[in-house]
Amino acid sequence: MDGDAKLRFFQHLVRFGYKEIEVSYPSASQTEFDFTRRLITTGAIPDDVWIQVMAPCREELIRTTIEAARGAKQVIVHIHLSTSEVFREVVFNMTEQETIDLADSPDPQMRQTAWTLEFTPENFQDTSLEFALEICEAVKAAWEPMEENKIIFNMAATVEAAMPNVFADQIEYFCDHISEREKVSVSLHNHNDRGCAVAATEMGQLAGADRVEGCLFSNGERTGNVDLVTLALNLFTQGVDPGIDFGNINEVVEMVEELTKIPVHFRAPYAGKYTFCTFTGTHQDAIRKGYKARARLEQKMGPSAKWRMPYLPMDPADLGRKHEAIIRLNSQSGKGGIGWLVNEVFEIDMPKDLEIAFTRVVKGYSEEKGIEITREIIEDLFRSHYMLSKPEGVQLVSCTLRTGKVCSAKPNGVNGHAANGVTSVNGIKDHVNGDNEPNGKILEHDHTKTVHLKAVIAIQGVRQEISGSGEDILTCLVDAVRELGFFFDVADYRTEWQHHEGAEDTRRSAGFVKLTSRDKIAWGVGIHADSILASLHAILSATAKLE
Amino acid sequence: MDGDAKLRFFQHLVRFGYKEIEVSYPSASQTEFDFTRRLITTGAIPDDVWIQVMAPCREELIRTTIEAARGAKQVIVHIHLSTSEVFREVVFNMTEQETIDLADSPDPQMRQTAWTLEFTPENFQDTSLEFALEICEAVKAAWEPMEENKIIFNMAATVEAAMPNVFADQIEYFCDHISEREKVSVSLHNHNDRGCAVAATEMGQLAGADRVEGCLFSNGERTGNVDLVTLALNLFTQGVDPGIDFGNINEVVEMVEELTKIPVHFRAPYAGKYTFCTFTGTHQDAIRKGYKARARLEQKMGPSAKWRMPYLPMDPADLGRKHEAIIRLNSQSGKGGIGWLVNEVFEIDMPKDLEIAFTRVVKGYSEEKGIEITREIIEDLFRSHYMLSKPEGVQLVSCTLRTGKVCSAKPNGVNGHAANGVTSVNGIKDHVNGDNEPNGKILEHDHTKTVHLKAVIAIQGVRQEISGSGEDILTCLVDAVRELGFFFDVADYRTEWQHHEGAEDTRRSAGFVKLTSRDKIAWGVGIHADSILASLHAILSATAKLE
Repeated sequence: MDGDAKLRFFQHLVRFGYKEIEVSYPSASQTEFDFTRRLITTGAIPDDVWIQVMAPCREELIRTTIEAARGAKQVIVHIHLSTSEVFREVVFNMTEQETIDLADSPDPQMRQTAWTLEFTPENFQDTSLEFALEICEAVKAAWEPMEENKIIFNMAATVEAAMPNVFADQIEYFCDHISEREKVSVSLHNHNDRGCAVAATEMGQLAGADRVEGCLFSNGERTGNVDLVTLALNLFTQGVDPGIDFGNINEVVEMVEELTKIPVHFRAPYAGKYTFCTFTGTHQDAIRKGYKARARLEQKMGPSAKWRMPYLPMDPADLGRKHEAIIRLNSQSGKGGIGWLVNEVFEIDMPKDLEIAFTRVVKGYSEEKGIEITREIIEDLFRSHYMLSKPEGVQLVSCTLRTGKVCSAKPNGVNGHAANGVTSVNGIKDHVNGDNEPNGKILEHDHTKTVHLKAVIAIQGVRQEISGSGEDILTCLVDAVRELGFFFDVADYRTEWQHHEGAEDTRRSAGFVKLTSRDKIAWGVGIHADSILASLHAILSATAKLE
Repeated sequence: MDGDAKLRFFQHLVRFGYKEIEVSYPSASQTEFDFTRRLITTGAIPDDVWIQVMAPCREELIRTTIEAARGAKQVIVHIHLSTSEVFREVVFNMTEQETIDLADSPDPQMRQTAWTLEFTPENFQDTSLEFALEICEAVKAAWEPMEENKIIFNMAATVEAAMPNVFADQIEYFCDHISEREKVSVSLHNHNDRGCAVAATEMGQLAGADRVEGCLFSNGERTGNVDLVTLALNLFTQGVDPGIDFGNINEVVEMVEELTKIPVHFRAPYAGKYTFCTFTGTHQDAIRKGYKARARLEQKMGPSAKWRMPYLPMDPADLGRKHEAIIRLNSQSGKGGIGWLVNEVFEIDMPKDLEIAFTRVVKGYSEEKGIEITREIIEDLFRSHYMLSKPEGVQLVSCTLRTGKVCSAKPNGVNGHAANGVTSVNGIKDHVNGDNEPNGKILEHDHTKTVHLKAVIAIQGVRQEISGSGEDILTCLVDAVRELGFFFDVADYRTEWQHHEGAEDTRRSAGFVKLTSRDKIAWGVGIHADSILASLHAILSATAKLE
């Protein structure tokens, strides 16, 4: 990252709410040094934010580091020193005493500031506890920290080498045995070599630590430092406010990916692309039911009702993520997920029988092609199986509907919608809506033919007069369509009608019809702003399939 | 994955050493059912491997599942049932008693086989321990397992909802309270929603569990199941043989990426691209020293000497990974890493001063360009700064070297190499190698001019006669080059010579020279099979920089 990129990263971290930010290793390169100066001289550091600068425990490099930070109000000077046997002997060829001598001579220049000293015995996890305590005591005695400006002892698992409970025991021992505990801030710095950094950090906190160092999405050497995003959101899901705002997690992901060039993994907790996706039918079905239960609960108790959802440990909306991304499909997906996606695409709730039938269609397709099913495939399959290929090619030119007792033909919607619907159908003169009962019980009504329909429809521009009568709008339509030369029985019929307040064009009707003819069965679905056309489309589509 | 892909995955898992492999969910789709049949009827299952088939706790689906597995010798039938409140109430609308009634009626068909029953109360982590025990006792009483064919109770954290220590406490409680413990295999099945699946699984094992379910590289719903690769290699690094062979981890990564289409993350423990990479100078320097110490140790104790390396928790070679991939550079990299890479590219060990100088060059370049430094960039920078742009354009046409006491000019290599070197230089008549002392002390020898050189060199085809004399080969060469019109002093001079037994063309010499002229300093490096040409190239390159 160049200076501009680092500055953007810094500003983002500040915006998320971080209060202590390690900004550089000034003795390592001019870039690092200059970046530190730039932060300080341009006033980029808010009053409540501490910057942290890192240096090895060598006098001239510490001096460069202090020089880089000069003028900043709140600085943590972070000095690391190798204390574990493998580092001392292999890398530095130093004894324990030589190491202590090196550590206990803090720079007099730094003593004059109100800055904070952080000391990292490295690799703490691999250092004997006695020696870690001995060297920290020596550093503390030399530095003389105060309760209001504690010294930070940073217990680094620079290489994760043991289980989290072992690490937590080490932290507990250190916290119990370091003298003047009230003048010490015990900090954790875990890497992820064994895949347990999050657990080790959380257990280390429970064992007494006061402070945590990490990176967003585990960036950092090798397998990375502990992931701060997971730590923060683990707290959040347990009802503890981490003080960090990840309300738009996708933005955080994009920022980090852009600046580090390292992708966040598909399965990263909370932030991964697949984190709120489920692939198997049982999971999809459970979540679908969970969302329905949630909607009922929210109606009763408002949006702050306790989150209680199968397979989703938190509400994706809390991270600015959307429900629509939750379900993707493959050949093992069950009907729950497919129903969900159809609902997402067409905003309709299929009758259960249709859902089962369509699930079979989708699975057959997925198995034949051996591919994952996307929204687009769902849409294509649903249209080609159940809908008119050109619904816009079917027009209701004129239509008269009369119920038995009504002689004059005024617009008169039973459920209040037909009146609105008139304007959306060209050339309609009279338009009385039938009894669009949503639960499919229509066919059991008494069979007195009280509704009469006369209409002119145009199919691909060719006009045709049709008429029918029956006990309701469906049977009228069916009767009329039979005039076109189709023979069939109606095994199922349902309609849906939605209207969202305020915008007329959100009206949306769906008609579902299951027709049978000899041994054939066909479902038809029509979707239209007008409910009569929706049903007509459904019937025409199904009859076409029966042929 | 289609059937072929699933079969390949299965065969790989068998080859790695897995003995229980969940192969399908036969009641979910025809693909799953057919794949199970295919495994069984084609004899793809080795004698010591158990296949596992999964089903929800519903009679007709269990029957389909058993039908799919018919004919297999060793089968684990894995039945899952929702027991946690949120699942029972939201998804299935069942009471605890109804759930128990559903669970305790095992299929009589299955009783006739010698198969194993696995029962998963789901989500165990979110189920009251009392109820989990109650339902497991009911299932066990109905199934009547034996000590030699235990029932598996699979303690699923289908959604990870608590810390690993909490999970381990639950496992311990279950293990302590389930009756007939000797007839029960307690299995773990952790997901990674809180990023702690590895820790939870390891701590669950310590708490008493006998068995673990997971996926390679954490594939599986949402954030994935626990990563089996990390679990196996965590054991390996602690000295426990996991019984799984990941000796070529890159191949495992490639296979999984190809079949799942999901990349393994850069920072995945053990397998990630960056896992054995370090970017910062301190880390690189430590590892470089670590490898030198390792080489000494291996000479003394052989390759089985205990692994003890800063920042590398295990030997990458144990995973079939290479050291050359370990170090990559950016502007924060120190000289350790740069020296390493130069060594990797050119097979030379730079003098320390040159390493410092070149590190400055590389950092300057990285900071100016704001890019990460690759091997290729290192090679280009090193060549353009220190080496002749066309070393093949310089030829030693003929050369006579005489030491003070030697009058006839016979090939006579002081360190045994010049004799071999003769044939590699065109037209050499006499070729006596000077005192190529490797530690740069040459200039302090006494100044008696005992070596005389006469040579014809061709630079880009133009022949030129040069001659010089001095106390050694260097001073002769310097004296001769001055004849070409260059004036300079020699501040440092070193050579390196390597020869690997058995292949003559592995001979390789490097000459390093630091020349000064007024206030200018220039390093030159020559690399050639012949040591005299290597030094000559070094001197010519450095003189060119001084101009």
